[in-house]
Amino acid sequence: MNSPKVAVVMGSDSDLPVVGRALEILDKFGIGKEVRVISAHRTPGMAVEFAEGAEARGVDVIIAAAGKAAHLPGVLAALTTVPVIGIPVKSSTMDGLDSLLSIVQMPKGIPVATVAIDGSENAALLAVQILSLKYPELRQRLKDYRKQMADDVKQKDLEVRDKLT
Amino acid sequence: MNSPKVAVVMGSDSDLPVVGRALEILDKFGIGKEVRVISAHRTPGMAVEFAEGAEARGVDVIIAAAGKAAHLPGVLAALTTVPVIGIPVKSSTMDGLDSLLSIVQMPKGIPVATVAIDGSENAALLAVQILSLKYPELRQRLKDYRKQMADDVKQKDLEVRDKLT
Amino acid sequence: MNSPKVAVVMGSDSDLPVVGRALEILDKFGIGKEVRVISAHRTPGMAVEFAEGAEARGVDVIIAAAGKAAHLPGVLAALTTVPVIGIPVKSSTMDGLDSLLSIVQMPKGIPVATVAIDGSENAALLAVQILSLKYPELRQRLKDYRKQMADDVKQKDLEVRDKLT
Amino acid sequence: MNSPKVAVVMGSDSDLPVVGRALEILDKFGIGKEVRVISAHRTPGMAVEFAEGAEARGVDVIIAAAGKAAHLPGVLAALTTVPVIGIPVKSSTMDGLDSLLSIVQMPKGIPVATVAIDGSENAALLAVQILSLKYPELRQRLKDYRKQMADDVKQKDLEVRDKLT
Amino acid sequence: MNSPKVAVVMGSDSDLPVVGRALEILDKFGIGKEVRVISAHRTPGMAVEFAEGAEARGVDVIIAAAGKAAHLPGVLAALTTVPVIGIPVKSSTMDGLDSLLSIVQMPKGIPVATVAIDGSENAALLAVQILSLKYPELRQRLKDYRKQMADDVKQKDLEVRDKLT
Amino acid sequence: MNSPKVAVVMGSDSDLPVVGRALEILDKFGIGKEVRVISAHRTPGMAVEFAEGAEARGVDVIIAAAGKAAHLPGVLAALTTVPVIGIPVKSSTMDGLDSLLSIVQMPKGIPVATVAIDGSENAALLAVQILSLKYPELRQRLKDYRKQMADDVKQKDLEVRDKLT
Amino acid sequence: MNSPKVAVVMGSDSDLPVVGRALEILDKFGIGKEVRVISAHRTPGMAVEFAEGAEARGVDVIIAAAGKAAHLPGVLAALTTVPVIGIPVKSSTMDGLDSLLSIVQMPKGIPVATVAIDGSENAALLAVQILSLKYPELRQRLKDYRKQMADDVKQKDLEVRDKLT
Amino acid sequence: MNSPKVAVVMGSDSDLPVVGRALEILDKFGIGKEVRVISAHRTPGMAVEFAEGAEARGVDVIIAAAGKAAHLPGVLAALTTVPVIGIPVKSSTMDGLDSLLSIVQMPKGIPVATVAIDGSENAALLAVQILSLKYPELRQRLKDYRKQMADDVKQKDLEVRDKLT
Repeated sequence: MNSPKVAVVMGSDSDLPVVGRALEILDKFGIGKEVRVISAHRTPGMAVEFAEGAEARGVDVIIAAAGKAAHLPGVLAALTTVPVIGIPVKSSTMDGLDSLLSIVQMPKGIPVATVAIDGSENAALLAVQILSLKYPELRQRLKDYRKQMADDVKQKDLEVRDKLT
Repeated sequence: MNSPKVAVVMGSDSDLPVVGRALEILDKFGIGKEVRVISAHRTPGMAVEFAEGAEARGVDVIIAAAGKAAHLPGVLAALTTVPVIGIPVKSSTMDGLDSLLSIVQMPKGIPVATVAIDGSENAALLAVQILSLKYPELRQRLKDYRKQMADDVKQKDLEVRDKLT
Repeated sequence: MNSPKVAVVMGSDSDLPVVGRALEILDKFGIGKEVRVISAHRTPGMAVEFAEGAEARGVDVIIAAAGKAAHLPGVLAALTTVPVIGIPVKSSTMDGLDSLLSIVQMPKGIPVATVAIDGSENAALLAVQILSLKYPELRQRLKDYRKQMADDVKQKDLEVRDKLT
Repeated sequence: MNSPKVAVVMGSDSDLPVVGRALEILDKFGIGKEVRVISAHRTPGMAVEFAEGAEARGVDVIIAAAGKAAHLPGVLAALTTVPVIGIPVKSSTMDGLDSLLSIVQMPKGIPVATVAIDGSENAALLAVQILSLKYPELRQRLKDYRKQMADDVKQKDLEVRDKLT
Repeated sequence: MNSPKVAVVMGSDSDLPVVGRALEILDKFGIGKEVRVISAHRTPGMAVEFAEGAEARGVDVIIAAAGKAAHLPGVLAALTTVPVIGIPVKSSTMDGLDSLLSIVQMPKGIPVATVAIDGSENAALLAVQILSLKYPELRQRLKDYRKQMADDVKQKDLEVRDKLT
Repeated sequence: MNSPKVAVVMGSDSDLPVVGRALEILDKFGIGKEVRVISAHRTPGMAVEFAEGAEARGVDVIIAAAGKAAHLPGVLAALTTVPVIGIPVKSSTMDGLDSLLSIVQMPKGIPVATVAIDGSENAALLAVQILSLKYPELRQRLKDYRKQMADDVKQKDLEVRDKLT
Repeated sequence: MNSPKVAVVMGSDSDLPVVGRALEILDKFGIGKEVRVISAHRTPGMAVEFAEGAEARGVDVIIAAAGKAAHLPGVLAALTTVPVIGIPVKSSTMDGLDSLLSIVQMPKGIPVATVAIDGSENAALLAVQILSLKYPELRQRLKDYRKQMADDVKQKDLEVRDKLT
Repeated sequence: MNSPKVAVVMGSDSDLPVVGRALEILDKFGIGKEVRVISAHRTPGMAVEFAEGAEARGVDVIIAAAGKAAHLPGVLAALTTVPVIGIPVKSSTMDGLDSLLSIVQMPKGIPVATVAIDGSENAALLAVQILSLKYPELRQRLKDYRKQMADDVKQKDLEVRDKLT
């Protein structure tokens, strides 16, 4: 339990293209990870087992992605005090609004840290920010990552200025 | 188990004013009932115990009311094959849309029979309609109830015609 | 009338691709079925005739699918005490919100058991859950079906863990 | 049948405060009227009888007001070729959006002329505009009414200019 | 002015594919028509001239289609007492909700008879229903048209029953 | 025409409580003003006359407030090249969304500078920012105003820190 | 600083296709321009530097385009008294509603002049209208541009009348 | 810096009633706190100074509450790698949807951990869950708190069962 560990759970393997972008970022920061497909509705027992054991398995943060009436993040959050980050996945109707409200509007007592619809990069980055409380070496890597993002914008800025002014 | 039985569950006792209107209708039809306060998030273990034991306790139909990210109906539905009717409760923000979408947009595999926002009368009536498959004597009572509703409208119609034409 | 029977009605034959997924599930459970195209607006007389005769024809549950200002489920529900399950069909505008609200927001007195937008699998499964009150042998088949769903998720879970951890 | 006649129907007598403002305008224009309380769901037979007989009773235009899953205007429109004007009534949830979409989003074939949420004055004025095709004397009264409205605005304009400039 | 005449106006020629379906129906009913492209915003003078002259040109009903902040139907309605039917056109954002609200939510005094988003067939049929007050021969044609629609549904019903039961 | 002048127009005198907050700010900056009640729908001729003459009367900026299907700002903008700022006024239904979309979603060619729902203070401040292009002395007053706003926040910050830390 | 100058800023170079249509219009009116890629979130320092220096660099108006939680226009507006025009960019979810509300609903004190979702042509035209306060020669060019737009509509009107009447 | 510290920032002192419920919970858990009023728009410099110095001041987590176009949480998040929790505050229009989308829909790179509209209790509890990574003694307190919440529900459940069964 001396190295950071994030569990990434999706409600269906069809969420993998969205979730995959979170996994890449976790890898880039060298974060250990569990990746799981668990349905709050079709495999409720697995959800209980997974969440109740998370702390003992050394999981520091849980990222959960789900669509439609997206109960997975809230269901997991109810079963552990490990922080849960929720990714609302856009499905074929309602443009993601159903997923977003089902995740973010958690009643008093059990929070889910919600990011944007399909916002898996930010879910991973938020996990790293949270982990940096316990693993301070991550904070510098976050600053480097931000610097890289800023440099990318600056590069684009130069290209656009060259092309258009 | 030879008489009809409906379990009515609310996510918080603050939902009682809404749920109360369902209880009155169940009483009017002489339906046996369990009334419970169970939070999917604050008492997940109670939710599991309640739902997994429902069939054995002779529960024919479950009515579950909840607000905001209203997971209770879906969480119960995942744990039993007893039909679950969901009542989205309007809370202080989003005018009930969050509750509605969190209940009705259940992913493939685990349905919740959803009624209108704050629609507890209809939840009870739907329960009675479902019960009438097993307890045919209820069907006549439903027809009488509908006749009474129609008569009430007709009475109002006469009053309005008298007053306004 | 000794075997289960579900009537599946769609407002237009263009709803068939959505409704077809409900029919497959009913077949899988061995449920007898009537399949109809009836428009609440273009063939109101057919709707009356169909709904008023449903009980006598031995229909246990009605599933009705419609889009836009989707009145069909409510119109049928007003004419019979057989439980009506409504499927809001997404049409070319409003992403299904119009269909959903037109079906779920039924006024006091006449309920429609509403499932997700385009949620025809769940409409069929809800019908089977309701039927199992009268035909108890269906309950075991429902449990087997749920076990199969859970096994599918577990299989996907294993595949994802293999591939990504 | 030589004098104009509008039928004004509401789904519930609780809609009377909204509908009353339409009645006043019809009276101001000297239009004959039928006023009815008919529920598409609780008294479907009355709705059929009312709508199918409307033409024979000399009804030129129907105004129908309803809330929530507001099927009344569409149900009436399906049963007569007399033009139907729909008033979406705001109810206790969803701020009238459910009523609006349930009325305006009518599928191809059966139109309802929809006005604003709670827009009963405009429903009455639209009825008069439609009637003026058959009863040309109404057109001048409409022009006088518009002139009066314009004069009222001009009066307010003068008052505001006096007070604030 | 002894034959029925409908003016069909669109805010941009890009609305022609939507509006075209209204024109076909008007032709089928033998209604005389004016077809115009007039922008409430880019050609406000044309809008004034068109609307103020409509009655004198023998226009019985105006159909106006527009998208986004769709002011055209309301602007025309303010300038004539000829009934105006509004078609909200879906544009590239907001799924038609902007057009719908901009047309249907007209303030007190100036109504627009609004149909569904992209609902041009219904706009034309509503025009014919309105025209039938003045031109009674249209009423029979409307009844025939409805019978044809019903027959089409019945034919589809038979095909679906053959194929699926 | 050597001093700044803003015309403030409201669609109805019931908008005065909202608009009043804009007038106070214009007074604070010493901006000359015209205040008018003009309805795009009930007094379309006044709207044309007002907007076409605005430039000649020395109006630099127009602020127009309206609710529901709020056409006034767009109608004025179509008739003058003077910049028009639109204030969507919240009315009794739809929570201001109808007004907002009717104003902000202007089609290509005729812009309206839209501020927040009921955002009249910002409408006035935006007017002053625009005026400062022509009347540079206003820029310093804007900076002073901003400093005052910042000082107010800092004062509140001190109070809250005192009370709560 | 004797010639008009508009700064056009986008939150990401992926907004260039939208923003490009604004640049073309500015070029057509001969307006000098700065074009920049600046992210309020990834390059906050650049945003501060850009906005605080805008007035000194002779920028008369800023146009800022951004999507999702679109803070860029508001962040820039907080740092300068130069008028800021905001373009909400539609992104992959929520159909632009998130961008629109994040830009238009600015709290009291700091306005952003918001145009339609993806409405970059109107952003440019609004900028020119604002510039015409300081550079009166632009007003005639605006009138010519409007005349050209009107002529285009009239041409389309003639074509449609030829083809369809 | 050896004790947990949360900074709680609100965009306006009018947010204090909402934010106050978060402060109570932080106090209950014995968390050190900074409480500030900082406006992203009216005091942008204070926002920069506050956020850039947060890490050095020993702040572990930031909670930021704001309404309408609620930029504050995102603006702070852009300036520090300390995790930022956003509370969307419901304001007088749009029922909190504007605040929610302005906070949760953050673009790629800078996450904000969003909780429910007006969900300040959950913001505080999420902060404690995050802090427990670094201060493990908090985890037990969280478990006790959850047990207390569960006991409260169980007590209500008993009361309701007594009263209603």
